Amino acid sequence: MAAAGNQGRLAIIAGSGKLPLFLAQASRAAGEDPFVIRLKNEADPIWEGFDNAVIGVGDMSGLSGLFASHDIGRVVMSGAVKKRPSFREISPTWKSLSKVPAVLRTLMAGGDDAVLKMVIELIEAQGCQVIGAHEILPDLLAEVGAFGDILPTSDDLRDIERGAEAAEALGRLDVGQGAISVGGRIVALEGVEGTDAMLKRVAELRAEGRISQRRKGVLVKLCKPQQDMRADLPSIGVSTVKNARAAGLAGIAVEAGRALVIEREVMVAAANEAGLFVMGIDRGLKDKHA
Amino acid sequence: MAAAGNQGRLAIIAGSGKLPLFLAQASRAAGEDPFVIRLKNEADPIWEGFDNAVIGVGDMSGLSGLFASHDIGRVVMSGAVKKRPSFREISPTWKSLSKVPAVLRTLMAGGDDAVLKMVIELIEAQGCQVIGAHEILPDLLAEVGAFGDILPTSDDLRDIERGAEAAEALGRLDVGQGAISVGGRIVALEGVEGTDAMLKRVAELRAEGRISQRRKGVLVKLCKPQQDMRADLPSIGVSTVKNARAAGLAGIAVEAGRALVIEREVMVAAANEAGLFVMGIDRGLKDKHA
Repeated sequence: MAAAGNQGRLAIIAGSGKLPLFLAQASRAAGEDPFVIRLKNEADPIWEGFDNAVIGVGDMSGLSGLFASHDIGRVVMSGAVKKRPSFREISPTWKSLSKVPAVLRTLMAGGDDAVLKMVIELIEAQGCQVIGAHEILPDLLAEVGAFGDILPTSDDLRDIERGAEAAEALGRLDVGQGAISVGGRIVALEGVEGTDAMLKRVAELRAEGRISQRRKGVLVKLCKPQQDMRADLPSIGVSTVKNARAAGLAGIAVEAGRALVIEREVMVAAANEAGLFVMGIDRGLKDKHA
Repeated sequence: MAAAGNQGRLAIIAGSGKLPLFLAQASRAAGEDPFVIRLKNEADPIWEGFDNAVIGVGDMSGLSGLFASHDIGRVVMSGAVKKRPSFREISPTWKSLSKVPAVLRTLMAGGDDAVLKMVIELIEAQGCQVIGAHEILPDLLAEVGAFGDILPTSDDLRDIERGAEAAEALGRLDVGQGAISVGGRIVALEGVEGTDAMLKRVAELRAEGRISQRRKGVLVKLCKPQQDMRADLPSIGVSTVKNARAAGLAGIAVEAGRALVIEREVMVAAANEAGLFVMGIDRGLKDKHA
């Protein structure tokens, strides 16, 4: 666990989902005094008891002001950002003005990975260090093997292999992190809609009889090969298990060492109860914990 | 145009969508006397004036009987098949009985391309020749260049390039044929849901502000690299234009020489009216008309 010490106060930039609150609680337990920067229209309003402020997603100038006034030295980005800022919402600092054309270009045309790399660069240009959630809470990272009581069958292992192949191709294109394989056939790939929406689509296709009723299938989530681990690591939690169950899947596989598991105990209990396996798979990347 | 001659009567195996009827009408105009085999729960019930019969999707034995009783020599497969037959729906012929385990395996686990290759093989084992829709109606194939009045902008050309790159990766995985790029960013990839459902998803994501309002974007449909041209060529028609318009796209690009254009005149008129471009792109494949 990193202590606050002379590295400056920790800021948590909070998008949607459960990860930001979980991270704030866990980092406090680890001796940090986190300051939470809630992204407008993205973060859930659940921040009682935490020092916090709200800013617009494109408000670089406001972000810079918050960093200065709260003596922020380290920044963790967490949670999803569904809507990219539009031209009108970008308020640059004087220092970052020359970067605006490139910023807009990336916001318009870049994949999520390109956008997040840019955000990291902009924050670090303010003198703050951007760190990954796993650097504060290494226990968040998925490890190799099954998390709960259920183990994948040989059919499931084949779906894991096929799903991983598709997710990797998808990641290389900077499109998304998730793929669903049912009986060895890829039935859905994750785009802008996100994992939960993709799982709901598969539940619908299953109800319509367009996906085999006799084969269960697996959701695979992998980190993009070129992805910076400080932003948008693939994550799973209770809602993933719930939606995977509704989609009729046998289980979920995530990349060990490069995926976050939110509220692990609650998630594992839900998976055990639903009869789903959840496991970390080793992709054999050398630099997994970088 | 191929004449009926001594090649035996032409059968059109009809799935859903407009292509089967269009093909029946056009092949009749070209001197054929097509016999239409409607797939149960798939084909639209619009076959007045055509000699036709209905069979279940997995009814190999019924298909074989129809081939014999109607003196079928050539078979065209057309239209979509949304639901694969289940175990119970497979009724093999005595001759094909030994192939059943492999057939079931492919139905469960294969991509569309694998399934269609198997169907072609089963039909040809009955002594019929399977031909492509474009072999009867070469005019159906998309040619290189813009079909209507609207031309792609340089932004659109970039989206075409990016979408083609994604669609090709998707095809190599035998997952789907379509991808949508908006401002150089891939926002959706086609899985089991099909092109129209993918376009509707993009329309929703656009309405929610999760896709840029300032960039239009392009739908790209390519033939899978390994695909047999006698089955499931990517196709576009009026509904594609309508849904692309609702998704806020600038246009549609398909693979020249390896994609079908249904009711071209009606589609081009709709595209002109909607302000969308539709064009064929050359992927530089040597054997395009094979």
